Amino acid sequence: MSAQTVQTLGERATLARIIPLLPVGAATELGPGDDAAVLGTPDGRVVITTDTMFEGADFRLDWSTWCELGAKAVVTNLSDVAAMGATPTGLVIALGVPATTPVDALEDFARGASDAIARCAPGCGVVGGDLSTSPEVTIAVTALGDLGGRAPVTRAGARPGDVVVVAGSLGRSGAGLRLLLAHGRAEAERVAPTDVAQHVAPCSPIAAGTVLADRGATAMLDVSDGLALDASRIARASGVQVALHGAALDGFGGDRDDVLFGGEDHALLATLPADAVVPEGVVVIGDVRDGTPGVVTVDGTAIPERGWDPYRDATPAS
Amino acid sequence: MSAQTVQTLGERATLARIIPLLPVGAATELGPGDDAAVLGTPDGRVVITTDTMFEGADFRLDWSTWCELGAKAVVTNLSDVAAMGATPTGLVIALGVPATTPVDALEDFARGASDAIARCAPGCGVVGGDLSTSPEVTIAVTALGDLGGRAPVTRAGARPGDVVVVAGSLGRSGAGLRLLLAHGRAEAERVAPTDVAQHVAPCSPIAAGTVLADRGATAMLDVSDGLALDASRIARASGVQVALHGAALDGFGGDRDDVLFGGEDHALLATLPADAVVPEGVVVIGDVRDGTPGVVTVDGTAIPERGWDPYRDATPAS
Repeated sequence: MSAQTVQTLGERATLARIIPLLPVGAATELGPGDDAAVLGTPDGRVVITTDTMFEGADFRLDWSTWCELGAKAVVTNLSDVAAMGATPTGLVIALGVPATTPVDALEDFARGASDAIARCAPGCGVVGGDLSTSPEVTIAVTALGDLGGRAPVTRAGARPGDVVVVAGSLGRSGAGLRLLLAHGRAEAERVAPTDVAQHVAPCSPIAAGTVLADRGATAMLDVSDGLALDASRIARASGVQVALHGAALDGFGGDRDDVLFGGEDHALLATLPADAVVPEGVVVIGDVRDGTPGVVTVDGTAIPERGWDPYRDATPAS
Repeated sequence: MSAQTVQTLGERATLARIIPLLPVGAATELGPGDDAAVLGTPDGRVVITTDTMFEGADFRLDWSTWCELGAKAVVTNLSDVAAMGATPTGLVIALGVPATTPVDALEDFARGASDAIARCAPGCGVVGGDLSTSPEVTIAVTALGDLGGRAPVTRAGARPGDVVVVAGSLGRSGAGLRLLLAHGRAEAERVAPTDVAQHVAPCSPIAAGTVLADRGATAMLDVSDGLALDASRIARASGVQVALHGAALDGFGGDRDDVLFGGEDHALLATLPADAVVPEGVVVIGDVRDGTPGVVTVDGTAIPERGWDPYRDATPAS
């Protein structure tokens, strides 16, 4: 362990320690170190998404290790690329940290990001980034992906008769957050280690994105703000209703409320033609129906369009 | 004027007011509103760069209007794309603001960004972004560009005998910052309106990037941390020395120290073969020589490799 901080070491030397820890990526033509990077786009189009995590509102350093933060920052963006039916090809990571932050912490962040990429999106590279000082830790990631000739799967294509499917877990991250807020990390982890792990470093089925697209997914998104709200987004964009089956939801375990309203699991929610072969590990949780656009029902009863709004919801202050 | 804040209006309605103010872009195939956007990449490669601006360290709300912040956030990234010899095609903008921020402020930010794009990089679109709450204003922008068949112009290709050229201004932003720190906006603007304007909303010659690339630029970068430091980056990466001519530097006006060490003008610094036709408006400021790699001289005297280090330098606290 080194006691050096980013301030004592400076930007160039800090980058020299971090960059070798990051994966290069199969499509990388020019990596970090210049004004910009260059990434191959075999499809002739590029998928792009960005997401920022703020200390306090999105994570707490007494709950998450730097390694977990690296993994979470990467996965939340990779899953948005996957939800379009694309394969992640590159990431840029902008990090703002207090000047007193140990360089070791940034190395752990890089290791966490690299491990998550190796696990979820092998072949994807970190092609660039930005280091700054800021009063609180801020992580801004942009992810790029390649569609491999597929049409992008938007939220707007669900049709009555389609089945509604989920790849990944639902409710675990929300349950983990509830426990962390109530008891802190040590006790929360004792009670429900899986839920806490899914909150601090979510596992998302990134590879399922292209599999679902190839099975004919008519709509898809990444469940970041809770199933109820994200299903209503598909329903509204597609001009349909989504009818969820309670028994299927109970198969995810835990509280029904967590499954419906807990965010940040980064599962993929998709609609498939009724005659599609549902991929292994993907669960049917409902079907698409005609009706007032945007409505989501569970066993026939409409549920509130409730979920995370970054500008309205209280933040878990530290 | 509306008194609504982002908190009272919420994310969806806030986005509905901002997105129509942003340009669509010629290469945009799928714009904001889904998990990710899709952008055409005619070259088969994409140039990508990211940069974050933090309130306090990078700007102050008593110095800059929201409109100017939008322009500056966009231009600092566009100039990195230009410095590779590419044409900017798309931007994603992630914004963190206090929940009490008026929606009007975000609209002004969007207008400032749009105006800057229309002026500097027409045809470039804002294809996506992210809205969050944060204690202080944070702006993370990622810019994409298309090389149009050109090889990317890195920092590493300068050869002895090349001429060193600049497109854009040098020292103006640094002079503006000095005045703002000493006197605040009103008085600084009375004394030197051009310098203050160049600091709060820099004008960068984005289109000169592809022009210089087409004239055979052997190395290029965006002067963000001061001429002395950025010239030494080319010199080190290329294994050469950069010999600057004092008389040419004085042509930029203002203090020699501002011209050498003032950052954030976002001029393009390039090296061209000696027989290249220097484009109109581009100024020759030196030549490339053999010698200890990384050294920069002015009229034969080595100058310190001094400039902005985000982790070491003091921030202008508000």
